[in-house]
Amino acid sequence: MRLAITGAAGFVGQAIVRELAARRQADVLLVDRAFAATPPYPVLTGDLADPALLRRASDACDALLHLAALPGGAAERDPAASRAVNLDVPFTLIEAMQGKRLVLAGSIAVFGDTLSGVVDDATPSRPASTYGTHKAMAELAFADSVRRGAIAGLALRLPGIVARPAGGTGFGSAFVSEIFHAARAGAPFAVPVAPGATLWLASARTTARNLVTALLSPATEAAAVTLPALHVAMGDLVAALGRRGDVSRFTFDEDAATRRAFGSYPPLRTPRADALGFAADPDIDALVGTVLADL
Amino acid sequence: MRLAITGAAGFVGQAIVRELAARRQADVLLVDRAFAATPPYPVLTGDLADPALLRRASDACDALLHLAALPGGAAERDPAASRAVNLDVPFTLIEAMQGKRLVLAGSIAVFGDTLSGVVDDATPSRPASTYGTHKAMAELAFADSVRRGAIAGLALRLPGIVARPAGGTGFGSAFVSEIFHAARAGAPFAVPVAPGATLWLASARTTARNLVTALLSPATEAAAVTLPALHVAMGDLVAALGRRGDVSRFTFDEDAATRRAFGSYPPLRTPRADALGFAADPDIDALVGTVLADL
Repeated sequence: MRLAITGAAGFVGQAIVRELAARRQADVLLVDRAFAATPPYPVLTGDLADPALLRRASDACDALLHLAALPGGAAERDPAASRAVNLDVPFTLIEAMQGKRLVLAGSIAVFGDTLSGVVDDATPSRPASTYGTHKAMAELAFADSVRRGAIAGLALRLPGIVARPAGGTGFGSAFVSEIFHAARAGAPFAVPVAPGATLWLASARTTARNLVTALLSPATEAAAVTLPALHVAMGDLVAALGRRGDVSRFTFDEDAATRRAFGSYPPLRTPRADALGFAADPDIDALVGTVLADL
Repeated sequence: MRLAITGAAGFVGQAIVRELAARRQADVLLVDRAFAATPPYPVLTGDLADPALLRRASDACDALLHLAALPGGAAERDPAASRAVNLDVPFTLIEAMQGKRLVLAGSIAVFGDTLSGVVDDATPSRPASTYGTHKAMAELAFADSVRRGAIAGLALRLPGIVARPAGGTGFGSAFVSEIFHAARAGAPFAVPVAPGATLWLASARTTARNLVTALLSPATEAAAVTLPALHVAMGDLVAALGRRGDVSRFTFDEDAATRRAFGSYPPLRTPRADALGFAADPDIDALVGTVLADL
């Protein structure tokens, strides 16, 4: 099966490439604007907002993983750019991949910020951001195309993935990644949520394993599937970081808006994802170990 | 306040024009491809899929009611046409009406066909048609624009509206309108659902009153509002038609797919719509009387 990966030069994309190479997967095409390092697979470079590039990518593969996205913070600042990248590109791919397999990387941002109780596969999406809105709309387009029998594949909702590279990534949740860099450097860090704030986290390595599983699986579902994640209290994460790094210069300085948007996630149940073979990192120490090893 | 109505030549549009004229509303612009009769307000004609036409309409008004749609049956046969009419047009209007008031006419089709229990304002949308999918996506785009403070107004979900003109209207639920025409004519009619099948219905006159109320109201809500409707069993509707028309040649001949899509609606609670001043027809005899008077 010929595979293609959009956004392959990005943070999660690089983890995907490592996972594919580790599995000795052949026939992989990597698609992105540019590649810093030389990857182990052929590349197709260009503007993903160009439908001709997307058609070249889809023509060259039997199964495509669409990772490329404009992240949440950037989408909120520029809704038109978000529409072009986060909505029109999936629309074009859903058309272009008819009769083939498409895996869409979506986001828990579709749930919005008023979650309570337990989130499970019945929890409705109520996005509270332009990013989450466009991801929810892409899910709807995908579901309708699967319902019509036009396409196979899965639309997956990714949790917060750590640790993205240091520096501005356009994600409002960037602080969750930055604490890993700070713990390794023994640097001071003002955690913008209280120890009791709760998040859903996954390592890039575990996320890549889930996404490659989705790409190679024969499973097709119309409704979007929320990936498993660790439900982590920030205080427990800092403690786990302290067992492998240096958090002596960390302070907690809660910002209400950050807590509401990124630190108020209730327990998560993902029976559909579990049945499809997707997994979370086993526990918080395993997650911290994996993440620090990959930094 | 200068008003504009898209789809003003259509079935609901004509009822809106009658309602506006009855209220002696001035400064109304009617927008549609063409008008059969000469309406009591100025018209703007052209292809609604032309963004220039939409901008001319939005430039000419302070509040716009967007009624025009490609109906469900036609949307299912031609998803690309549905995307152009049911998705791209609302997207363009949401952009063009920034800083002004927009009322989007949506549909209960966003709920899909697996409803159970009671439907209320917390029921998630799970569309099971291309039409419902595009209506749900338009709701999401509208909600995000309201959340951003870019636009005012309401997105309303309309129930089944009776009685549309006889003959193919592109709606899969056309049979619900056709029974009114058949009852008035004393014609034979094979009702495609059993007497126990349940629907949500509203007369065009009541719907027009709700939509004009929405257009003139100062209320703005991000989340779509489901309009009230009568929860009607098909057997009760036929009995009520028999009190004012002739149903002696009616038979019931249930089609499972029709029952599933259009005859399985559970009880409906609409507290948000009720609080905003929207109303259903008072009872089934009132609905039948209003509809037959307007045929």
